[in-house]
Amino acid sequence: MATTIKNTDKAMIPEPALRRLPWYLAYVTLLDERGIEYVSSTAISRELNVDASQIAKDLSFLNIKGKTRIGYEVKRLCHELQEFLGFKRRHNAVVLGVGSLGGSLIHDSGLGNYGLNIVAGFDINPDIVGKTACGVPILDISSLETTISKLNVEVGIITLPVDHAQEGADRLIQAGIKALWNFTPYRIRAPRGIVITNTSIYAHLAVMYNRLEAQKRIDDNA
Amino acid sequence: MATTIKNTDKAMIPEPALRRLPWYLAYVTLLDERGIEYVSSTAISRELNVDASQIAKDLSFLNIKGKTRIGYEVKRLCHELQEFLGFKRRHNAVVLGVGSLGGSLIHDSGLGNYGLNIVAGFDINPDIVGKTACGVPILDISSLETTISKLNVEVGIITLPVDHAQEGADRLIQAGIKALWNFTPYRIRAPRGIVITNTSIYAHLAVMYNRLEAQKRIDDNA
Repeated sequence: MATTIKNTDKAMIPEPALRRLPWYLAYVTLLDERGIEYVSSTAISRELNVDASQIAKDLSFLNIKGKTRIGYEVKRLCHELQEFLGFKRRHNAVVLGVGSLGGSLIHDSGLGNYGLNIVAGFDINPDIVGKTACGVPILDISSLETTISKLNVEVGIITLPVDHAQEGADRLIQAGIKALWNFTPYRIRAPRGIVITNTSIYAHLAVMYNRLEAQKRIDDNA
Repeated sequence: MATTIKNTDKAMIPEPALRRLPWYLAYVTLLDERGIEYVSSTAISRELNVDASQIAKDLSFLNIKGKTRIGYEVKRLCHELQEFLGFKRRHNAVVLGVGSLGGSLIHDSGLGNYGLNIVAGFDINPDIVGKTACGVPILDISSLETTISKLNVEVGIITLPVDHAQEGADRLIQAGIKALWNFTPYRIRAPRGIVITNTSIYAHLAVMYNRLEAQKRIDDNA
C-alpha cells in the first residue's frame, strides 16, 4: 500500500535533528517559566550554540511557524515540541534486571515526565522479588510474558548482566515488546522492525576519561 | 614544547573507536568468565556485528598484538582494554543536584566498577542535606569548593534542574573541576580545556519514541 510522506512526517526527521529538539524544549520551557512570550531562532542559537539556520530547519519538522521579527510563540513551541517528541504520551515499560542500574531507573521518577511509565521490574533474586521499589512491583521473571500482554507494555529496558542481555532481549521480543532500551554494553541483536536504543553510560565514561587524560597531557606540555 | 605523538597515544583515538572499545570489553570479559583463552577479531566480529578489520584497527590503539590463527589472549585483552579505558583508575566525582536522577546515580554502585568514585552529593534541600545516600554524604552546596579541593575531585556530575545547570557548571569549574558529566538536556558551555560529556537520556527516549511510531506506521501499511 502506498503512503504519502509529508514534510511533517515524523519518520523523515534525521536522528541528529531529533536529538537536538530536547535541547530546544529544555530552553523554551525555561523561557516559559520566566514568563517570556516569544523567542527567535537567533536567540535560541545564542543560548545553545547551535547555528540559527539549523534551528529553523529542525523546527520546520514541527507544526509551528515563526513570525518575522517576533519569532516563535514560546508556549506553543513548548507544546509542539513535547507532542512531537512523544513526551506527553504514556509509554508503558518494564525493567529487566533490577540490580543497581535497573533499580536506579525505577527510582528516577523524572522519566515519567518524559512519557516513560515503568509498570514492573523483573528479576530472579528471591530477596527482591515480591517487593516494590518506589511503588513499582518487582516480579519473578516467570511472569514476564503475562505482564507484558496484560499491561500493554511497549518498551523493555534491559539492565541485565552482560551475559544475559541477549537472552533477555529475545524473551522480551517473544512476549511482544516493540522497543528495547539497552543499558548494557552488549550489542543486542533483534529482528527487523524492533527498535533498539543503546544508552551506554559506561562508554560515555570511557570517552570522558580519555579526553581528561589528553587534556592533562596538553596542560603538562603547555 | 614539542611532543611526539605515537600511534598508541590515547589522544589520537577517534571517538567512535573509543565508544566501541567498551563493547569489546563486555564481550571478552564474558569469554574470560567462561574460561576461553583466545579470541580472534573474526569471532568478536561475528558476535558484535562490527566489521573484523574495524575491530583489528580499533585494537591497534592498545598495547596488544593478536597472533596469526590464534587471535588475542583473552585475559590480556581484558586487562589492556580496562587500562586503556581508564576503568581501573579511580576518578573522584561529586554529584550536583541530588534529586531523582542524581540520587539514582549515587545509587548505581555499578559506576564504581568503571572507575567512577562518587565522594559527595550537593543539594540545597534541607530535607536531605546532612544525610547520606548509599554511604555517600549529601552536603550543602556552600561546602562545594572546599570539598572539591580537599578530596581531589576531577569530575562534576550535573543533575540539576535545567535552569541551574549553567550556574552549577560555572561553580564546579571555578572550584577546579576538569570534567563535567552533564545529564541535563541543557547545553552547558565551558572554557577551552574543560571536558564536557553530555548524556542526554531523555534525548534517547525521544529517538526511541519516534522510531517506534515510524515502525507502527510501517506495520499498519504492510
